[in-house]
Amino acid sequence: MPEFLTITDPADPRVAAYRDIKERDLVGREGRFIAEGETVLRAFVRDAPQRVESLLIDPKRRDKLSEVFDGLPQATPVYLVEQAVLDALAGFHLHRGVLAVGRKPDAIPAADLLAGLPERAVVLALFGIANHDNLGGIFRNAAAFGADAVLLDADCCDPFYRKAIRVSVGATLSVPTGYIGRGEDAVDLLRGASFTPLALTPSAERTLAEMEPPARAAALLGAEGPGLSADVIARAQGIGIPMANGFDSLNVATTSGIVLHHLRFGGR
Amino acid sequence: MPEFLTITDPADPRVAAYRDIKERDLVGREGRFIAEGETVLRAFVRDAPQRVESLLIDPKRRDKLSEVFDGLPQATPVYLVEQAVLDALAGFHLHRGVLAVGRKPDAIPAADLLAGLPERAVVLALFGIANHDNLGGIFRNAAAFGADAVLLDADCCDPFYRKAIRVSVGATLSVPTGYIGRGEDAVDLLRGASFTPLALTPSAERTLAEMEPPARAAALLGAEGPGLSADVIARAQGIGIPMANGFDSLNVATTSGIVLHHLRFGGR
Repeated sequence: MPEFLTITDPADPRVAAYRDIKERDLVGREGRFIAEGETVLRAFVRDAPQRVESLLIDPKRRDKLSEVFDGLPQATPVYLVEQAVLDALAGFHLHRGVLAVGRKPDAIPAADLLAGLPERAVVLALFGIANHDNLGGIFRNAAAFGADAVLLDADCCDPFYRKAIRVSVGATLSVPTGYIGRGEDAVDLLRGASFTPLALTPSAERTLAEMEPPARAAALLGAEGPGLSADVIARAQGIGIPMANGFDSLNVATTSGIVLHHLRFGGR
Repeated sequence: MPEFLTITDPADPRVAAYRDIKERDLVGREGRFIAEGETVLRAFVRDAPQRVESLLIDPKRRDKLSEVFDGLPQATPVYLVEQAVLDALAGFHLHRGVLAVGRKPDAIPAADLLAGLPERAVVLALFGIANHDNLGGIFRNAAAFGADAVLLDADCCDPFYRKAIRVSVGATLSVPTGYIGRGEDAVDLLRGASFTPLALTPSAERTLAEMEPPARAAALLGAEGPGLSADVIARAQGIGIPMANGFDSLNVATTSGIVLHHLRFGGR
């Protein structure tokens, strides 16, 4: 069981990490992140209890969370903070009333992550996904379909940003994530690890539905609007999802779900 | 060409429909709606020019929108409003700078809509989708995959709500929409129109990927969390999408995309 500590003063230095949450979202937290909400907390404590630095909860929620506490190391502090104090501390009304500060894992280079994956594997490689809703939605789908990894290029936003964690229902904390460095060639990297790079792009002639999933598949996704770069598309296997009567495109998170479903269960 | 009218006073009665947009979102607009953003406007004017009551644009955007104006009836007013006046009028900073007021079409009963659909058809039937992001996302997918109709039960939110229109990229204005009345039996209604009701539910044994799409398919979707009612599931054909290692569920808009992709292009 962790240590329970009641906090009554929003200025208490022990809970400084929870102060002015939205302002700190913008400047970053030096290797730490904020997770919020019961579902996310449960997933985080289950998947990585050693990376939970502290919990902060409204005491009314203590009974509901007892099994979460059972999963925590003994020394982990759980701060009990009444809702009014919590709101003053966080700087806005946090109706979820359940928060954690976690330590980010070390960033793993994409090449290292790919090298350790099994014979049959599915990964997503994301290029310039700078919208936290979309990034969170993609990670949620990656977890739902058991993707082996998500790779992020240098123009993607931070998967440990509070909103990305929340939208992903905690999946950004658990799905293995690799980083493609600026200037690194993602297509070469993937081919070098025997992955077939599949560039999802509306202009492709070959459609997803008729594609037989390769043993090691990497689905490449770009941001809505610009999409993938012409260079990446030219050097990967183009795959399209046909749209009805002039409709432009799908949301990129939805696209990731459709692609993962096909790679996992389609073909033959 | 429409009529161009320059407005310099936020209190001008001619633009009263654009006043305090967020407050009016809450109370409703008596048969009218607000559409915003260039992409949505283009789709609206293309699909239903006779339902455009007026446009309101920042004069800086006039040149970019000339083909939109060409599609409008002659008497439709286009109010030219500088950004500062627009912000004062709307009550917040509207960085899109392109707005329209439209008239809602008459609500069509689901049964009437189904009766007019072709031999091969795909519809979505939504139950209790009360989140505007999810409703908008579902309509966007319906348009992208050319679904023949979306049916809404009495517990769904309004597809003409400003945010639902925006997230749908205008699709809620164009996808044929039918309403299931409170107390009406949706499963009976669908079977009566020779549609196979497919209840998307995590517990179903039969999976989407192995299902041969029926000629007339209706995918039934419930809100995240509660899902579909036990009664609806029991009386429809249950269809599941298997989740990896204990992950709970997909986002409902993502689910609609996966289902529509399979119904359009899967099977055989």
